[in-house]
Amino acid sequence: MNFPSRLIEHAVNEFAKLPGVGRKTALRFVLHLLKQDETEVAGFSDAIVKLKRDLRYCKNCHNISDSGLCNICSSSKRDHSMVCVVEDIRDVMAIENTQQYNGIYHILGGIISPMDGIGPNELNIETLVDKVRQNEIKEVIMALSTTMEGDTTNYYIYKKLSAHAVTISTIARGISIGDELEFADEVTLGRSIINRTLYEKNLIK
Amino acid sequence: MNFPSRLIEHAVNEFAKLPGVGRKTALRFVLHLLKQDETEVAGFSDAIVKLKRDLRYCKNCHNISDSGLCNICSSSKRDHSMVCVVEDIRDVMAIENTQQYNGIYHILGGIISPMDGIGPNELNIETLVDKVRQNEIKEVIMALSTTMEGDTTNYYIYKKLSAHAVTISTIARGISIGDELEFADEVTLGRSIINRTLYEKNLIK
Repeated sequence: MNFPSRLIEHAVNEFAKLPGVGRKTALRFVLHLLKQDETEVAGFSDAIVKLKRDLRYCKNCHNISDSGLCNICSSSKRDHSMVCVVEDIRDVMAIENTQQYNGIYHILGGIISPMDGIGPNELNIETLVDKVRQNEIKEVIMALSTTMEGDTTNYYIYKKLSAHAVTISTIARGISIGDELEFADEVTLGRSIINRTLYEKNLIK
Repeated sequence: MNFPSRLIEHAVNEFAKLPGVGRKTALRFVLHLLKQDETEVAGFSDAIVKLKRDLRYCKNCHNISDSGLCNICSSSKRDHSMVCVVEDIRDVMAIENTQQYNGIYHILGGIISPMDGIGPNELNIETLVDKVRQNEIKEVIMALSTTMEGDTTNYYIYKKLSAHAVTISTIARGISIGDELEFADEVTLGRSIINRTLYEKNLIK
């Protein structure tokens, strides 16, 4: 693409670094910003700078937090002996929205992905092992994506924790509610039969 | 969505103002930025501020330009008697990429769209009429989208210019190269038959 202005080109290049944004979409964003007034654009830019400069992470779970401990870790109403291991804060938000979980979280900050140059050392795994080692935790619930990378990470953490006295579980895999059986993939359907739930359990809930 | 931090929420709200970006995508952008280092994020924010603060528009065609006149308007190799009327700079870039047009442009900065509160006065139409009035232009080529809004704008400009001695044309509408006839919509196919091109013309080209 030939741009009529260096400033445009520069801004397009910056926007195109965002995930899933190509140069055409980036140009659309830039043209949109050009139509806004200057205070609006300054506000946008300001939010980005502040985000990076002022954001703090929870010392305990690595969640994003405005102060030292996040809302979840500092709450006495949560069960601190149960830790749900997730990839990033989007997963925390998704699980919190279900209102079905009362434990705390541990945010890895990514998953093991050699293709992207992310190894175990880039992730917050050591602090999880430390917590388990200090006998603070009774159960670790793995809630990572069902991808190759997710499974690798699951396996790595499982190996790291298996020497310690802690229950390790993973969230249930199965047919989503509302999905039709005939369109489910074989692996999911197979797993959902193996890990079937007894009928009484459902009634109790 | 409940965000664990006000800064995140603020940044997500800002990103979600971009066209075609919902709050989930905005959050994805924000988390991506959080993973970058501070200079990278500062560069991003800087590009946006500079874009709005330092960008100039061409005095002649309203194209984006780093100086008073854009590259196209200041070029002596272009035919200044032929003006192609387009919506925004993306269209200029698209037409320039074809390397089939040697005239200059006139950028309206949008199209008439009462639904979005954009009337003729919000667009650069008066300056086009002025140029035509001063007999600077022999042909005006309308190159707007084939939408209701585009057609309205075409008609409005046609009415404004028809009193003056200027040829007004519109870019050809027809079946795209590579498209199959059976999947073309009726209006396009109908127009492509009415505005058929004589065989010799194609041979010459």
